[in-house]
Amino acid sequence: MNGSLVVVGTGPGKAELMTAATQTALARATDLVGYGPYLDRVPRRRHQRRHASDNRAELDRARLALSLAAEGHHVAVVSGGDPGVFAMAAAVFEAVETGDPAWRRLDIRVEPGVTAMLAAAAEVGAPLGGDFCAISLSDNLKAWGTIERRLKAAAEGDFVIALYNPASKARPHQLLGALKLLRTIKAAATPVLFVRAAGTREAEVIAASLGDADPSVADMRTLVIVGASTTRRVGRWVYTPRSEAR
Amino acid sequence: MNGSLVVVGTGPGKAELMTAATQTALARATDLVGYGPYLDRVPRRRHQRRHASDNRAELDRARLALSLAAEGHHVAVVSGGDPGVFAMAAAVFEAVETGDPAWRRLDIRVEPGVTAMLAAAAEVGAPLGGDFCAISLSDNLKAWGTIERRLKAAAEGDFVIALYNPASKARPHQLLGALKLLRTIKAAATPVLFVRAAGTREAEVIAASLGDADPSVADMRTLVIVGASTTRRVGRWVYTPRSEAR
Repeated sequence: MNGSLVVVGTGPGKAELMTAATQTALARATDLVGYGPYLDRVPRRRHQRRHASDNRAELDRARLALSLAAEGHHVAVVSGGDPGVFAMAAAVFEAVETGDPAWRRLDIRVEPGVTAMLAAAAEVGAPLGGDFCAISLSDNLKAWGTIERRLKAAAEGDFVIALYNPASKARPHQLLGALKLLRTIKAAATPVLFVRAAGTREAEVIAASLGDADPSVADMRTLVIVGASTTRRVGRWVYTPRSEAR
Repeated sequence: MNGSLVVVGTGPGKAELMTAATQTALARATDLVGYGPYLDRVPRRRHQRRHASDNRAELDRARLALSLAAEGHHVAVVSGGDPGVFAMAAAVFEAVETGDPAWRRLDIRVEPGVTAMLAAAAEVGAPLGGDFCAISLSDNLKAWGTIERRLKAAAEGDFVIALYNPASKARPHQLLGALKLLRTIKAAATPVLFVRAAGTREAEVIAASLGDADPSVADMRTLVIVGASTTRRVGRWVYTPRSEAR
């Protein structure tokens, strides 16, 4: 087994936010495996095979990638953002754990990238300047009760909260439920930022407060940041001071 | 005021993990402001001035940068990692809030980067594959009671926890205190990863469990990741499944 597998993230969208290490890994691969729109961000190369799939069936995609690597190919599994944050890296290791024992001997690497919340934060200032949490609101893979428990803990700990996957056509109600729960603990004046297409040329920000935030402005490309008690506006920016004393 | 200010992060260390957008911003700057070791990662250019400082006095450094921009210079404030995560971006906006009102009209931007916890996670697999928190253990800027409250909330929410600034010569006791607190809530078998110099050629990983983790192995260059209840080992990797059901 002289194949290899590297899991990469293309960053939030703009090519300039993909790391050089990821570009090199993509250039060396014989096979690319990933969700179609992420593969579309990768320049085409001769003799490189592409295995595009839809956005579900992450485990199947991971197994395909591992099988190709076990056959001796050099496989890059392509995520958006950072591959370790709500993306393909965990699916690859889950497939290793539950799959062919020989896969454990493969050369497997993960290349870090710029995850969506960092790009979203940069669009508005420095809202993640203090302690923060990242929570995926998708309940495809975990119970809504688990999500509620984490939202409650994050609010009680006065963390800044980054909400990934806040809404999709199949799940319009999660963000409404999350905001309702957060309103029972955090102040109504807490800044809430809806950042759409962060780190792309189409980036858009809607700034609101927890009391009046309208969840219907979020879609699949939106990341939502809910501030801590110290998160504040200054001019057109929002930031969380490093110090709690201010 | 035709100057500008961009806050950038050089990533975890290896040049290949700095984004192209950050390299471009650095190349365009007339003035670089930052902590000496981060400036040392930036290639020298003729006619570009460097204003190196020590690691403290972040607000003073931010004010210097804003003053230079207000004089018409194109200033890059240089952090490590991502500038919005326990780094200079929040200090810049804090200086704007408390400083010369004219600074609010400046052209200020933040460029996202690869923060340490993403590089640390990539070194070991995908430990941040589920919901996670980032907490700085430095009590220079916040009370230890606040840190304890957040550790407790993060443990009760069963988040994966990334601990930034776990220890320094001036603060050897924080990590011991944090691990002791986490042991009262999380299982002794919970994976704990000490990742030193993640995203550099000298990266080193010490894998332990919460019950036997020795805080003295951490230093200023270490990032500590404490797993959730589902975080597990497979072969030489550690990951957190996206699903809680497994």
